Amino acid sequence: MRLSRYFLPVLKETPAEAQIASHRLMLRAGMIKQASAGIYSWLPMGFKVLKRIEQIVHEEQIRAGHIPMLMPTLQSADLWRESGRYDDYGEEMLRIKDRHGRDMLYGPTNEELITDIFRAHVGSYKDLPLTLYHIQWKFRDEIRPRFGVMRGREFYMKDGYNFDIDYDAAIHAYNRHMVSYLRTYERMGLKAIPMRADSGPIGGEDTHEFLVLAETGESEVFYDSAILDLTLGDRAVNYDDRAECAAIVREWTTPYARTDETHDAAIYGQIPEARRKSSRGIEVGQIFYFGTKYSEPMGAVVTNDRGERVPVHMGSHGIGVSRLVGALIEANHDENGIIWPEGVTPFHCGIVNLKQGDAEADAACAGLYKALAEKGLEPLYDDREERAGAKFATMDLIGLPWRITVGPRGLKSGVVELTCRRTGTSEEMSPEAAVARVAEIYAPHTAPHWEPMAKSSFHTWL
Amino acid sequence: MRLSRYFLPVLKETPAEAQIASHRLMLRAGMIKQASAGIYSWLPMGFKVLKRIEQIVHEEQIRAGHIPMLMPTLQSADLWRESGRYDDYGEEMLRIKDRHGRDMLYGPTNEELITDIFRAHVGSYKDLPLTLYHIQWKFRDEIRPRFGVMRGREFYMKDGYNFDIDYDAAIHAYNRHMVSYLRTYERMGLKAIPMRADSGPIGGEDTHEFLVLAETGESEVFYDSAILDLTLGDRAVNYDDRAECAAIVREWTTPYARTDETHDAAIYGQIPEARRKSSRGIEVGQIFYFGTKYSEPMGAVVTNDRGERVPVHMGSHGIGVSRLVGALIEANHDENGIIWPEGVTPFHCGIVNLKQGDAEADAACAGLYKALAEKGLEPLYDDREERAGAKFATMDLIGLPWRITVGPRGLKSGVVELTCRRTGTSEEMSPEAAVARVAEIYAPHTAPHWEPMAKSSFHTWL
Repeated sequence: MRLSRYFLPVLKETPAEAQIASHRLMLRAGMIKQASAGIYSWLPMGFKVLKRIEQIVHEEQIRAGHIPMLMPTLQSADLWRESGRYDDYGEEMLRIKDRHGRDMLYGPTNEELITDIFRAHVGSYKDLPLTLYHIQWKFRDEIRPRFGVMRGREFYMKDGYNFDIDYDAAIHAYNRHMVSYLRTYERMGLKAIPMRADSGPIGGEDTHEFLVLAETGESEVFYDSAILDLTLGDRAVNYDDRAECAAIVREWTTPYARTDETHDAAIYGQIPEARRKSSRGIEVGQIFYFGTKYSEPMGAVVTNDRGERVPVHMGSHGIGVSRLVGALIEANHDENGIIWPEGVTPFHCGIVNLKQGDAEADAACAGLYKALAEKGLEPLYDDREERAGAKFATMDLIGLPWRITVGPRGLKSGVVELTCRRTGTSEEMSPEAAVARVAEIYAPHTAPHWEPMAKSSFHTWL
Repeated sequence: MRLSRYFLPVLKETPAEAQIASHRLMLRAGMIKQASAGIYSWLPMGFKVLKRIEQIVHEEQIRAGHIPMLMPTLQSADLWRESGRYDDYGEEMLRIKDRHGRDMLYGPTNEELITDIFRAHVGSYKDLPLTLYHIQWKFRDEIRPRFGVMRGREFYMKDGYNFDIDYDAAIHAYNRHMVSYLRTYERMGLKAIPMRADSGPIGGEDTHEFLVLAETGESEVFYDSAILDLTLGDRAVNYDDRAECAAIVREWTTPYARTDETHDAAIYGQIPEARRKSSRGIEVGQIFYFGTKYSEPMGAVVTNDRGERVPVHMGSHGIGVSRLVGALIEANHDENGIIWPEGVTPFHCGIVNLKQGDAEADAACAGLYKALAEKGLEPLYDDREERAGAKFATMDLIGLPWRITVGPRGLKSGVVELTCRRTGTSEEMSPEAAVARVAEIYAPHTAPHWEPMAKSSFHTWL
């Protein structure tokens, strides 16, 4: 993309209403604009990041054998009366009457709707296991929306639901979700720690939250620092293998990690002191096993292999897709702006032309642009007639991880400058070397991540 | 995808509530399930088609130089009061009060919101031309929703908005949209005819609707059959070239083609009789030029090159993404089911194993699956323990354009059968030849369509 043709309305001033870094930076970098309280328009660059995150979530869900679909935003109140949650849910549920006076609501979650789909179409244990998920806009009528997309009213979320024949199969689904979530966050460059949590209004026996450490987090968290050393790396996970998934879950849930809701000072006290950490955390996902809580009242039953009708065991599993944009920035910024991890950056590499209009500099930039695009990368070329300082400030603010600076002086000696946003270090090299270097850095992120698939899976994504 | 692991709840019976083929077939093929009146869940296969269409729309918009973003579903009523449309819009607008009693609405369209974004961030002619678009769920509270996704209440739509300095620039944007829409429909295998139309509640001077010919269409249309012969093919269009875009528009708007709203019997009578056609049509898109209708009342003004403040010239342009799924089926089905055009099919090729459990047949199917996947294609492998007739009926119903049938008898002579869903013709050949043939058929559809881009454009999509 050439910046002169893009719509990137960066702000010079810090907006007064923004209390936390991610909100401030998303407004300043022209990623969002508030449409009304807690409701945002995603301007082009913000939309790109949102889509990058959505794509990673899809790929990792499909890799785990979960099937994408889409439920609508508006739901009939009837299903919620059936589960008993219509009255339980407080004022955060946005209740709507249509022109015929029928009670509707803007879905805050989808347990009822998915259970209704399941009971209408599935009747036999032979159709299990089944995990369906979607990524859709939800609404929660927060009394005091704040912190930008971190605590908005209209928000984008992945929610998935597993249907299994018994407890063991459902716990495998739970484990499969934990593993796929760990992979998802890792690909985004995020350290999200699974912590034993409270089940809240969804209900359930087993539940973990995934928390990103950040000063502005809404939860206090306590953990054994050993958990920070764990990584999946490029382990090939067979999601059909119960023991393999359980082992990974054990690995991640053995070190102590809890939110203030479930914190146990006695157990925490036993961690060696140097590893005992407390901090703030941002919740970016949660998984639940809740057994037959919805299947029993709503009649989601199947025939088992002995011919008996049994309610299915379910769980639900969510990732806050729009919230992740904020969480990523909270965890990755400095005083000059955002620092995108390579996995989610809106553009892979900036190109700054120090002398727009200089024939040689213009040609070198166009050549870099073409070469990067041919490697499957998306550059953002600042081709505006602006002074170098302003171009650098914009690049630092929007936080592309890599920047190539092109100027007449360097070109005389055949070099451009490659700069890392995170470390601030620059290196001079030939344009060809810069392109090769950037392509190499992104190789793990631009490879088709849904192919080859995990051994177990035949799913592909569009 | 292996069918045994998928969620494809096909129905044997024809649902009584469905009056038209697309509604009937989408229910029967397990593509959708009604959630409440005029509101649908998209089951996995329906969701896949929706995404294919969305992807084509994105690619062609980006190719034309239009910039993707995303506006929220819920809007504040205030902006609509400013444009004067809050009261004009009837009961089809879903009006909502939030917990603080503020008037909100579920957006049926986005002229107000996009104009608000524009006026907040753009002040100079130097930032023009600018076309922003999004693909988002909309709501129209139809008094009597019917025909499935063709006339639902919650629907998925692409709407784009151009901002230009003067009439000529805005007409170029109008033309650019017409050309990009023609390409979009053509890639989907649809013949959509641009017809001079009425502007309706959006308001405007110049407007064309795009209509697909189908018996079940809601509009009566009159046209010169010469228009059916026009095709863009793989013409490389330079979307920055005003004359080139205008010429294509002239080509498509010269033959007579109008809906009953704008029909002129006198002009129609002058067409040679053999080419004079009338039929029913389904509207799948509409483009508008409406000048300063929103920019004046809402103060969307920029400074021109003479330093004067002038309201921008605007247009809005829509494609019914969810409606297209229905329209595609109306135009492509027979008594056995759907017949997907190659450009939008949920899976590229079916694999039918005539003898599941036969080691040789199973191995041949697995080999075909792998070979097709390696060509970047998505097969749907019916690996269920079902008799051949049931497998064929399912394949015909869901309408994949190509099917490979594998049986022990054929394998003895080293052949499988490749069947075309549209013509019903089958041909025996080696598995390798079948894979090569299918890959060749799909080559125009699996190539990366957003790269190389049109000469003018540096946009890429995720």
